[in-house]
Amino acid sequence: MRMAQLSDESGVSVASIKFYLREGLLAPGEKTGATQSSYDDSHVSRLRLIRALIEAGGLTLQTARTVLAAIDDSEMPINDVLGQAQKALPELPTEPSAASLDRIRSLMRTQGWRTWHTNPGIPQAAGVLDAYDRIGRDDMIAVLEPFAAAADLIAEADLDLVAASRDRAQMAETVVVGTVLGDRLLAALRRIAQESVSHTRYSEHPLHDEGTEPHA
Amino acid sequence: MRMAQLSDESGVSVASIKFYLREGLLAPGEKTGATQSSYDDSHVSRLRLIRALIEAGGLTLQTARTVLAAIDDSEMPINDVLGQAQKALPELPTEPSAASLDRIRSLMRTQGWRTWHTNPGIPQAAGVLDAYDRIGRDDMIAVLEPFAAAADLIAEADLDLVAASRDRAQMAETVVVGTVLGDRLLAALRRIAQESVSHTRYSEHPLHDEGTEPHA
Repeated sequence: MRMAQLSDESGVSVASIKFYLREGLLAPGEKTGATQSSYDDSHVSRLRLIRALIEAGGLTLQTARTVLAAIDDSEMPINDVLGQAQKALPELPTEPSAASLDRIRSLMRTQGWRTWHTNPGIPQAAGVLDAYDRIGRDDMIAVLEPFAAAADLIAEADLDLVAASRDRAQMAETVVVGTVLGDRLLAALRRIAQESVSHTRYSEHPLHDEGTEPHA
Repeated sequence: MRMAQLSDESGVSVASIKFYLREGLLAPGEKTGATQSSYDDSHVSRLRLIRALIEAGGLTLQTARTVLAAIDDSEMPINDVLGQAQKALPELPTEPSAASLDRIRSLMRTQGWRTWHTNPGIPQAAGVLDAYDRIGRDDMIAVLEPFAAAADLIAEADLDLVAASRDRAQMAETVVVGTVLGDRLLAALRRIAQESVSHTRYSEHPLHDEGTEPHA
């Protein structure tokens, strides 16, 4: 197909397709003339994946490039693909403190969690504890253990999905998409559950006075 | 204290303090001369909170302004503060489909979750299902139920922390900081748990061949 049709099929504008081609996120089509190329279904799928990662997943172009390269590298062990996808986390403003890193390591021992020192979640989690501490709210670390129990349920579901993938290519896609979009899905479900729990606990005092009905 | 000392105490640069004053995120100090003002501990605390929300929590200036205003409005019911903090979610690229919204509502019934129609998590979660669907991976909705069970644990911990707050001002801060930084903490713990679960499941095939030892 021509580029115009590729744009229609994928829902990605021609300008963006040209940009992704230039940036190397999308493989070139087959040359059919001096200024024309032909594209196929693999280009449509790839554009949809790029769109999912960048638009729905909120990845930067740079991070999208890294995780797409991990998907494409069929020699890369699946756990290294997971390692790449895991790095799709916001940058920390400062190095985490030793005290917070110790607190996370102690949590890991309690949970029976074993990872390599390089796991990007360790400094990220410690950075959040530092932020609680800096605003004088170290009482907020009370959420650590219940959040860790929840993270266990989540990780089991994540790995179940990876195990159910039909081949290496799909497994890599599952790891990347599951990690990136999963964060967003979880944040969304957390908001629904928060309101529901709040409603259950404080039902004698209605939470809202709009005329709308709560969802049953 | 003068602005230079406020900067030292809070760890926020003078240029940023001036910016937050101009933008109305920080209340003006007490005028002590034509070009000088005096600041107190409340300014230090406020700057630390702004920093936590923007730097560690990744909020935009606009969202930070909204949630700070919710904290400041002592007349605002705590559940409305929660509603404001809940909106701190990335923007959706497109409207979610009716099919995905139905899927989330069905999940809510299964979970016994009751919320108002306006809960921002509902379209967000549906948007992620749409993204799975657009890349031909509707099999990935298999994570919905385990993620929802995890969201329940998380929301109970969130509301426990709110209930333990000593007064309305601290409660509002807990709601805002807990919601915003909690997303990041959870994403971090999920990455640690993912690697640990992967290690446990595939321990016959070592995940990495670096010389580092896994954390015990």
